[in-house]
Amino acid sequence: MLNKNTETFICCDRDYNDSSVVLFGAPFDGTASFRPGTRFGPSAIRHESYGLESYSPYQDGDLADMAIFDSGDLELCFGNTNKVLDNIYQRAATILNDNKLPFMLGGEHLVTLGAFRAAAEKYPDVRLIHFDAHTDLRQEYLGETLSHASVIRRCHDIIGDGKIFQFGIRSGDKSEFVWSREGHTYLRMFDTKGLTDVIHSLSGLPVYLTVDLDILDPAVFPGTGTPEAGGISFDELRRAVTQACKGCKIVACDVTELSPPYDISGVSTAVAGKIVREMLIALNPIIRRP
Amino acid sequence: MLNKNTETFICCDRDYNDSSVVLFGAPFDGTASFRPGTRFGPSAIRHESYGLESYSPYQDGDLADMAIFDSGDLELCFGNTNKVLDNIYQRAATILNDNKLPFMLGGEHLVTLGAFRAAAEKYPDVRLIHFDAHTDLRQEYLGETLSHASVIRRCHDIIGDGKIFQFGIRSGDKSEFVWSREGHTYLRMFDTKGLTDVIHSLSGLPVYLTVDLDILDPAVFPGTGTPEAGGISFDELRRAVTQACKGCKIVACDVTELSPPYDISGVSTAVAGKIVREMLIALNPIIRRP
Amino acid sequence: MLNKNTETFICCDRDYNDSSVVLFGAPFDGTASFRPGTRFGPSAIRHESYGLESYSPYQDGDLADMAIFDSGDLELCFGNTNKVLDNIYQRAATILNDNKLPFMLGGEHLVTLGAFRAAAEKYPDVRLIHFDAHTDLRQEYLGETLSHASVIRRCHDIIGDGKIFQFGIRSGDKSEFVWSREGHTYLRMFDTKGLTDVIHSLSGLPVYLTVDLDILDPAVFPGTGTPEAGGISFDELRRAVTQACKGCKIVACDVTELSPPYDISGVSTAVAGKIVREMLIALNPIIRRP
Amino acid sequence: MLNKNTETFICCDRDYNDSSVVLFGAPFDGTASFRPGTRFGPSAIRHESYGLESYSPYQDGDLADMAIFDSGDLELCFGNTNKVLDNIYQRAATILNDNKLPFMLGGEHLVTLGAFRAAAEKYPDVRLIHFDAHTDLRQEYLGETLSHASVIRRCHDIIGDGKIFQFGIRSGDKSEFVWSREGHTYLRMFDTKGLTDVIHSLSGLPVYLTVDLDILDPAVFPGTGTPEAGGISFDELRRAVTQACKGCKIVACDVTELSPPYDISGVSTAVAGKIVREMLIALNPIIRRP
Amino acid sequence: MLNKNTETFICCDRDYNDSSVVLFGAPFDGTASFRPGTRFGPSAIRHESYGLESYSPYQDGDLADMAIFDSGDLELCFGNTNKVLDNIYQRAATILNDNKLPFMLGGEHLVTLGAFRAAAEKYPDVRLIHFDAHTDLRQEYLGETLSHASVIRRCHDIIGDGKIFQFGIRSGDKSEFVWSREGHTYLRMFDTKGLTDVIHSLSGLPVYLTVDLDILDPAVFPGTGTPEAGGISFDELRRAVTQACKGCKIVACDVTELSPPYDISGVSTAVAGKIVREMLIALNPIIRRP
Amino acid sequence: MLNKNTETFICCDRDYNDSSVVLFGAPFDGTASFRPGTRFGPSAIRHESYGLESYSPYQDGDLADMAIFDSGDLELCFGNTNKVLDNIYQRAATILNDNKLPFMLGGEHLVTLGAFRAAAEKYPDVRLIHFDAHTDLRQEYLGETLSHASVIRRCHDIIGDGKIFQFGIRSGDKSEFVWSREGHTYLRMFDTKGLTDVIHSLSGLPVYLTVDLDILDPAVFPGTGTPEAGGISFDELRRAVTQACKGCKIVACDVTELSPPYDISGVSTAVAGKIVREMLIALNPIIRRP
Repeated sequence: MLNKNTETFICCDRDYNDSSVVLFGAPFDGTASFRPGTRFGPSAIRHESYGLESYSPYQDGDLADMAIFDSGDLELCFGNTNKVLDNIYQRAATILNDNKLPFMLGGEHLVTLGAFRAAAEKYPDVRLIHFDAHTDLRQEYLGETLSHASVIRRCHDIIGDGKIFQFGIRSGDKSEFVWSREGHTYLRMFDTKGLTDVIHSLSGLPVYLTVDLDILDPAVFPGTGTPEAGGISFDELRRAVTQACKGCKIVACDVTELSPPYDISGVSTAVAGKIVREMLIALNPIIRRP
Repeated sequence: MLNKNTETFICCDRDYNDSSVVLFGAPFDGTASFRPGTRFGPSAIRHESYGLESYSPYQDGDLADMAIFDSGDLELCFGNTNKVLDNIYQRAATILNDNKLPFMLGGEHLVTLGAFRAAAEKYPDVRLIHFDAHTDLRQEYLGETLSHASVIRRCHDIIGDGKIFQFGIRSGDKSEFVWSREGHTYLRMFDTKGLTDVIHSLSGLPVYLTVDLDILDPAVFPGTGTPEAGGISFDELRRAVTQACKGCKIVACDVTELSPPYDISGVSTAVAGKIVREMLIALNPIIRRP
Repeated sequence: MLNKNTETFICCDRDYNDSSVVLFGAPFDGTASFRPGTRFGPSAIRHESYGLESYSPYQDGDLADMAIFDSGDLELCFGNTNKVLDNIYQRAATILNDNKLPFMLGGEHLVTLGAFRAAAEKYPDVRLIHFDAHTDLRQEYLGETLSHASVIRRCHDIIGDGKIFQFGIRSGDKSEFVWSREGHTYLRMFDTKGLTDVIHSLSGLPVYLTVDLDILDPAVFPGTGTPEAGGISFDELRRAVTQACKGCKIVACDVTELSPPYDISGVSTAVAGKIVREMLIALNPIIRRP
Repeated sequence: MLNKNTETFICCDRDYNDSSVVLFGAPFDGTASFRPGTRFGPSAIRHESYGLESYSPYQDGDLADMAIFDSGDLELCFGNTNKVLDNIYQRAATILNDNKLPFMLGGEHLVTLGAFRAAAEKYPDVRLIHFDAHTDLRQEYLGETLSHASVIRRCHDIIGDGKIFQFGIRSGDKSEFVWSREGHTYLRMFDTKGLTDVIHSLSGLPVYLTVDLDILDPAVFPGTGTPEAGGISFDELRRAVTQACKGCKIVACDVTELSPPYDISGVSTAVAGKIVREMLIALNPIIRRP
Repeated sequence: MLNKNTETFICCDRDYNDSSVVLFGAPFDGTASFRPGTRFGPSAIRHESYGLESYSPYQDGDLADMAIFDSGDLELCFGNTNKVLDNIYQRAATILNDNKLPFMLGGEHLVTLGAFRAAAEKYPDVRLIHFDAHTDLRQEYLGETLSHASVIRRCHDIIGDGKIFQFGIRSGDKSEFVWSREGHTYLRMFDTKGLTDVIHSLSGLPVYLTVDLDILDPAVFPGTGTPEAGGISFDELRRAVTQACKGCKIVACDVTELSPPYDISGVSTAVAGKIVREMLIALNPIIRRP
Repeated sequence: MLNKNTETFICCDRDYNDSSVVLFGAPFDGTASFRPGTRFGPSAIRHESYGLESYSPYQDGDLADMAIFDSGDLELCFGNTNKVLDNIYQRAATILNDNKLPFMLGGEHLVTLGAFRAAAEKYPDVRLIHFDAHTDLRQEYLGETLSHASVIRRCHDIIGDGKIFQFGIRSGDKSEFVWSREGHTYLRMFDTKGLTDVIHSLSGLPVYLTVDLDILDPAVFPGTGTPEAGGISFDELRRAVTQACKGCKIVACDVTELSPPYDISGVSTAVAGKIVREMLIALNPIIRRP
């Protein structure tokens, strides 16, 4: 299942059968309306992961001790969004059916829809924790319902009211905020306060965790298509994803929206890689091994 | 018909009714497989056109004396290629139906298909002159028939054998060259030799002229998604497009594939603007005024 | 009065007569001593404003509901500073005389002098609130009295002691700090503490608000000619300008010193646009409509 | 006379009194209308000259054997064009009065006017050889008569008809070409053909040589404010300046318009340095020593 | 001893004999394993120091009043690490033997070893305060014992257990943290807490202070070879180095790891220069004059 | 022998045993004196090779039909030049001993010495064809004999006079040209004229071909550490290497000196990849299969 000619994320080179977490890349940015480039995200994260250490002093854990397989990037066809989402769905479903945890590297945020479909199919009571600067709750965008700006709305189509938990939101159309407040989603503006309570309330339930890295302040993470001033710090995000990965029953997750062409100095890619490392270590793939 | 908030190309601000040439932008790069960014091409060409003079010492002509209207960019939805091509077709058809010449600024090369459909509908005996580094003759690319790599093949679907004239080609799949040599298209490798004869042979026939700027050497034109070493010089392209615009009965044309994110120094955008200026002056829009 | 071929800031396209706030750009950097480029600031802020939402979740207000006209950029002649300042003065005076609020986008900070002259002419008791990293209090700079480094000193020439309120200052010649402390200006070093008291003390008085964006930390705002480490955060500036625009009787204002050539990733331009949006919404141009 | 803290151009560190050629920088770009940055030209040329060899295989000569002093950059005040030109005039006049050859590094092209004034004062029968992409013959530009776009016209004000020889010109207002053709200047479009005849005709006459590096094709020299496609090659310029420096009685010269901020890869600066090296070696400063 | 053709750091141009602090550059990056470029650090810091003021509002002190000599860069030969370290040792020893304080600008962090050897030779009871993101405690790296990743371990070879005080550490091999905890070094993770106590405990002892600028968050300091998310702020570092320079008996110090090629916007260089300025003013070189 | 986690050059993924040409990367730039970065060359060439076609219209040949194995990059330790050269020697010797052709991707030009040693050991009568802008004939550079500036001199140490053939040379110390002319090497300045005669004279002899890509003009190939204006065109180099690979008995070869950090637009990497493709196809690895 490994694509030929692909680097793995640092130390994620166990055999597929032995692994409990399986990485894959979804290098798609076909609905990006402003500045494309997230298609280069997965390979950049892998490539620059060799500038990181495999050991986390935050968690005193080491990727070298864990059972993770990086299955490489999907080969996605630009210009046909439905087919792209279907390809993503298939990869995620395969991994889930083997009782492993799919960990997707985006790509634009719409790729979440493909993997979330697979997770919701296997776990009908799945909840969605969503870190992002943007609501992503539009019914449509420029006439299209499949858009990076409507991906969470499409997830809501699948699981309905009260099951989506959004943090860090600081940008959106007025109508999106209004719609959320009508009870459709839990929406925490600007930061991640309240996460502890949400995690507590989801005890025992399967959770899909999606991280749009533009939740970070553009000072920390300039390499994104839609920089939104006023975001959270690296440390706040690091703590939040660690807490979610440790405290929830995560069944699938993703990290999206790194756009390497806008990351001239490479600091955004380094941030993305470190968030991935911390999430992987927090998921602690050893004890989940079947 | 002018989009709000859009700069025009330098001196292309006549009234629509008075104009015989109508510019429009097709800011689409949705099928770009390698490095996206041509969506920013039309606005960059317009913006940097103010660093040019409106006067051409090559032709001793001045845009300030001509009847050209720049109708701004189409608002295109990424993720739905068919709809995009239809939007482009509509704009081109409207201009053609008003007996004006549509001059499109791309965008990736696939946008040509939308405008060419409109031209072939009005002029069923239309011929296509094609300047490019790439054959663009694939039957499909990654499973999709609508791709920047297959745009000329799709034009061939419409007008058939012996009506497409390709120059400067230096890259493609082996099968594309073979297919061309079977008599489907005229294909001149590496340069523009033979153009004079082709123009002569097309005397009186309607011609669509499409210019993929990556025909230029990447030294001259680095700002493109697929740089191909070994291209022609600015002067060779300038002479060729001038000759085609003066010598043929051009009914529609386009200039595509400038990708501003890869044009850090701005020289590619300056080249693109100058090619557009020379084509416009060669078309001499005054005497074509209805 | 609208310059041809100019984009407007997002949603700032009402009729001039209906508007109570009028934007204009002063694309001048002629006295920049270190790294020029702020001349490109106004057009970059406008262009990238389309990557923002018109709605502010901070203030629950929307530019789409407000009466703002963007009158485009002045055409300024480099090499003649007096003429440039006079052009700026004329535009600001025209807007003020029509009982509207001029909102200028710089350009280097010296442009403030032109607009401030117009404001002080109409409102002789005007006060100046000044957000900046630099004191800008030099009597002269390299022999010239009209310089970005002396702009606030020139404003002081007009209105005298005790009427200028400076915040965030962290750089200057020693003599400038000494001169300020002699009672000529109120100068708060490093941050915006004390703003509430100042606003209270200015109750009822006309206020000109000038924002030099380099008050921000270079991590947040790298795109400036003179990066000064140790600045305030986006949130501190956002809160301060919102508070000033809501709490004072603002009669004119400006946002200056974005230098797009040093903003490779685009984050500085996004920050600038968001500060402008928040100021515009805080000014609430509807109820000021005549 | 050496400014403190200034690198010299490679091997140009003889004593002033021993030298027959004296370099100085005029780091001014105050009238640049499009993209500023040439103020950084002189220091970039010096700094990167250490990546060159002092030996020229073209001429089999070595800077290490020559008598050249680099006197560093003038400290020029932005915002006051007249004062800047006066500072330049003073430096050039001092060098000329010591019977040495001033070799100026720009800066924008207007700086030529200051040095040319000094040369024309000492040598009233001086001729001007001008390599450039642009005519620079405007009577005024945006209302100002002192502009980079009018610098050669201002030189013409001093020496009159038939004494200016322009090569490589490929851009200008139509009226500028018309004015030249009325007999005011010799103007060779596009290339340097005819230079041999001009040099022959100037036998024995004092000559000022001014090189605007944008005569080069932007492929070769992207680092300039106004890239003009279709320029000459490095080798054509190298040959032309060498021929002029060897064949004429050069009394002063300059090399202008390198704009380092647009020279990301550094190739333009390397080109500029090599042209300066070839000119210096062709001037052969040893035998001119007093 | 001043290298020819070298700019000095702003205001550091006293005579060597009069000075109590002597700057020098060690432009070496020969063991950089990931992204080289720190060789350009010293000249960039000097060059951009002219964009700073010599006056510090933080300390109310001015470099213009102090006795500092900048002796320029060492000429180091890449490819022979032992020779490089010996060259550095010689320069530092010379300065120390003249009873002056050597202040080195790196270069990669390994350069510290050369200067530290000289300091430990003169002051056998020297202690080392170390600000860094990385432990730098490897016994070897890719088989080499002389590496940027093992520099502090090599210093430990010289002075032994309990004499090295590390702050801000957030990256390293697991074994490095374990080794430190065995009592070999004092290691404070993530921030600079505890510095006050350490300074107190070192009362009267000679101290070498080494600052690897990547202790800063990459948002503040992107221009480094190994960006590590989660670092400290400019203000925390500024306070810490000021406190150390004022509170300890500093006998030598360095600032390392600025990599200008990754500092496109220039903000990292500006940060580096300001840290150097604050350290110099805190060392207060006047009263140390012999 | 394949390094894990390495992309191959496009279509170079046959089994080692079946292959007659074996690629490997030598990512070393440890003696680069001016601008480092060539260490990133091999991985950039591989990564961007997927933007090329495997088919060459110049030669009507296709990499997909050939027997080539890409064995990935050596892991080289910076700071110890002798060890690095030994690692390279070992890899080349292993490939040669298996009767395959080693094709090395640099890295700086010094890496040639390691591979050339292996070739000269197996083929004592080997000749060296050298394409370069620089003579590389220094006896030493900054005191070191192992330097990119002396690599060809070191090769001469091995094989002696009259066996080295240099083309395109346009930069060097005067003494290097003098030394060559004393009969030590054949040196063609500026271009590749004479290559046909040289190839003819080497009939039947084993040849090592080394290509320093900076032989190209910096317009074509800006991404190099030492740009030298006045180089040859892509087509001249393409023809020359094709001719050499077809006309000589090549036993080993290399392509060196691509420096991706200076190749912002990516055109240099695309040029490098195309030269590698053309050389591989010209070597025609099928019929050499054992």
